[in-house]
Amino acid sequence: MSIDAKFQRLATDNAPGQELRQSADGLAAQMIGGPLEGRPVDFSHGDVDAHPPTPGSFDLFSAGYEMGGAQAYTEYRGDIGIREMIAPRLARFTGAPVDAKDGLIITPGTQGALFLALAATVTRGDKVAIVQPDYFANRKLVEFLEAEMIPVQMDYLGTKTGAGLDLGELEAALKAGAKVFLFSNPNNPAGVVYSADEITQIAALATQYGATVIVDQLYSRLRYVGADYTHLRAGAIDPEKVVTIMGPSKTESLSGYRLGVAFGAASVIARMEKLQAIVSLRAPGYSQAVLRSWFDEAPGWMEDRIAQHQAIRDDLLAVFAGCEGVLVRSPQAGSYLFPHLPKLRIAPGDFVKLLRLQAGVSVTPGTEFSPHAAQSIRLNFSQDRSAALAAVRRITAMVDRYRA
Amino acid sequence: MSIDAKFQRLATDNAPGQELRQSADGLAAQMIGGPLEGRPVDFSHGDVDAHPPTPGSFDLFSAGYEMGGAQAYTEYRGDIGIREMIAPRLARFTGAPVDAKDGLIITPGTQGALFLALAATVTRGDKVAIVQPDYFANRKLVEFLEAEMIPVQMDYLGTKTGAGLDLGELEAALKAGAKVFLFSNPNNPAGVVYSADEITQIAALATQYGATVIVDQLYSRLRYVGADYTHLRAGAIDPEKVVTIMGPSKTESLSGYRLGVAFGAASVIARMEKLQAIVSLRAPGYSQAVLRSWFDEAPGWMEDRIAQHQAIRDDLLAVFAGCEGVLVRSPQAGSYLFPHLPKLRIAPGDFVKLLRLQAGVSVTPGTEFSPHAAQSIRLNFSQDRSAALAAVRRITAMVDRYRA
Repeated sequence: MSIDAKFQRLATDNAPGQELRQSADGLAAQMIGGPLEGRPVDFSHGDVDAHPPTPGSFDLFSAGYEMGGAQAYTEYRGDIGIREMIAPRLARFTGAPVDAKDGLIITPGTQGALFLALAATVTRGDKVAIVQPDYFANRKLVEFLEAEMIPVQMDYLGTKTGAGLDLGELEAALKAGAKVFLFSNPNNPAGVVYSADEITQIAALATQYGATVIVDQLYSRLRYVGADYTHLRAGAIDPEKVVTIMGPSKTESLSGYRLGVAFGAASVIARMEKLQAIVSLRAPGYSQAVLRSWFDEAPGWMEDRIAQHQAIRDDLLAVFAGCEGVLVRSPQAGSYLFPHLPKLRIAPGDFVKLLRLQAGVSVTPGTEFSPHAAQSIRLNFSQDRSAALAAVRRITAMVDRYRA
Repeated sequence: MSIDAKFQRLATDNAPGQELRQSADGLAAQMIGGPLEGRPVDFSHGDVDAHPPTPGSFDLFSAGYEMGGAQAYTEYRGDIGIREMIAPRLARFTGAPVDAKDGLIITPGTQGALFLALAATVTRGDKVAIVQPDYFANRKLVEFLEAEMIPVQMDYLGTKTGAGLDLGELEAALKAGAKVFLFSNPNNPAGVVYSADEITQIAALATQYGATVIVDQLYSRLRYVGADYTHLRAGAIDPEKVVTIMGPSKTESLSGYRLGVAFGAASVIARMEKLQAIVSLRAPGYSQAVLRSWFDEAPGWMEDRIAQHQAIRDDLLAVFAGCEGVLVRSPQAGSYLFPHLPKLRIAPGDFVKLLRLQAGVSVTPGTEFSPHAAQSIRLNFSQDRSAALAAVRRITAMVDRYRA
């Protein structure tokens, strides 16, 4: 593949946070009505001013800076003292051992961990099973590596218990030779959580076909009342065939420090470090120090954060419920809503642009997550509660305006 | 290529900073004499405690943190306000315009910039001209991309003016189809600076053969008395065919923040951002704020830093000059020495390990930089002056002990 062709497939024009690089040319002709006033809300990512970083994070960074060279220049896979500190906490959380020395790497964000894990397990021509919808970068990583994506559908609006993964399609993908299955749990963008039964069957299928599973559990701490969560790595699966990815960028609002971790299969972690050595050397040294408080937050802090998000979720769901033709599932975890809109008079991509221009509301088009999700939009509702509520009212007003 | 084969070629066992993962098994039998006492010195990277970060860097980080979400979530290519602040400074330094909007990207370290620049210009099967010796990751990046390296020799110990690049070999590589020429100036590991004539000829050859040039100028601010420096991008070359890479990790000791920049060819920068979006999203948001002081340090600060390094350089060169059979060129810029050792009774790799075990001195084996440089070792002399002097005395004592 030529490098031109390769990069044309990696378009980021609609990626979350890149909206300011878009042009609004030609949209005026389609516009109905005037502006909808209100405080602008950027649902493309969480608002760390409304939900600030874990208390004490800056002091830990500051102490890391004071430590000097020892904190600035760590092993490529991250400072061993910090790895030894967080490994038992990750083991406790996920229900299976974590080897601080050989089974854990600190990366520049969860995005870094995803790239490294996939590049350490997949090469040109390999087949990779990817859920639709799922995190927008998964597909692009497969394309960058010139591997072949086999999509596996998830009926996230369905009424089945669990996430709604089509396990038959997953088996067909593995039978067709998929070496790796990559999925997020809770699912980004739909906020659904895989049931114990789904996770058990994923483990059984991966074992049967010898596949490696990379599971992005970025949002697995932000779980709402009644959500049961099953950690794949704690189940009946070869630990050398599972890589689990997490990070403190979302629930803990530490994104500005660029931190993520991957843990599990030592052979994969070793490759990830080799690759990290040539793509970014290491996660920012001083930032690594911030991980010292991870999974050790003050009592009640996480419960409060969850309660705040659950309240916002419920507010927004109530507004969408009052808008005819909008279908949305209540997320069991994470801070994403993925409403499916009724048919509109304009193309979904134009509606997303007009939402920003007319209503001051940025959302991410569903097509970033699945080619079959053009009628959906993704909202990260980790926002100021009243601003988010008003913004979603503007979204539904816009739906009514542009309804077909 | 299988993924196993691919990663076997990416070995990092001898990469700078990874020494603590090495095993010392089997070395005892070769050991001559006892330990050489002294304060351990790690020449594999600079000592940011001896040469601390630019004054005020932490306050800028702190202000970035206080700014909150706007600083945590920037465009993938970095905060536009910061890009607009540093673009004119980079333009002034390099002698050619820098477009803040489309021609500049902030990356997680200079390593991040190198990876992105190469991955944005080279794909599988492409030919890439690489200098020998040069930065250890250059070759590995080519291997990761499954491209083909064409080595171009540099006679860095020679007596020619300039770096000693074999321009005939460079032309042969371009004639053979090399799409990209990647080199560091000042050279890492040898500290040599390319002459105006060499840079002019590189520009002419690249133009003639339509190649893109990626020039890693990481150390181009740390220049010693009498060193003339020519910026490739200021010369007679299509600006869309040059990407210049810099960063504040070395001279400015800001490595712990993980910051680098690439600037020049807008088409390449655009691709680099697309790729950054899926490998690490962005350079750490709060860290980006530290760039506000870059190229705007207090008057005299840079001159002092250069003078301190020049003094260390001269101390160490004097010790090596007194050791029979050691050949070393005085670096004109940067903080690397790359002495060529006399023939020893043990393998060069074992000597490097014994240096660490017996003498408490970590250096990087020459083979990381060129297959033809097994007899050389690299030292980053950005260290405490007296500790470095004592450590180099231990190196020469070890050379005498193991001399063939």
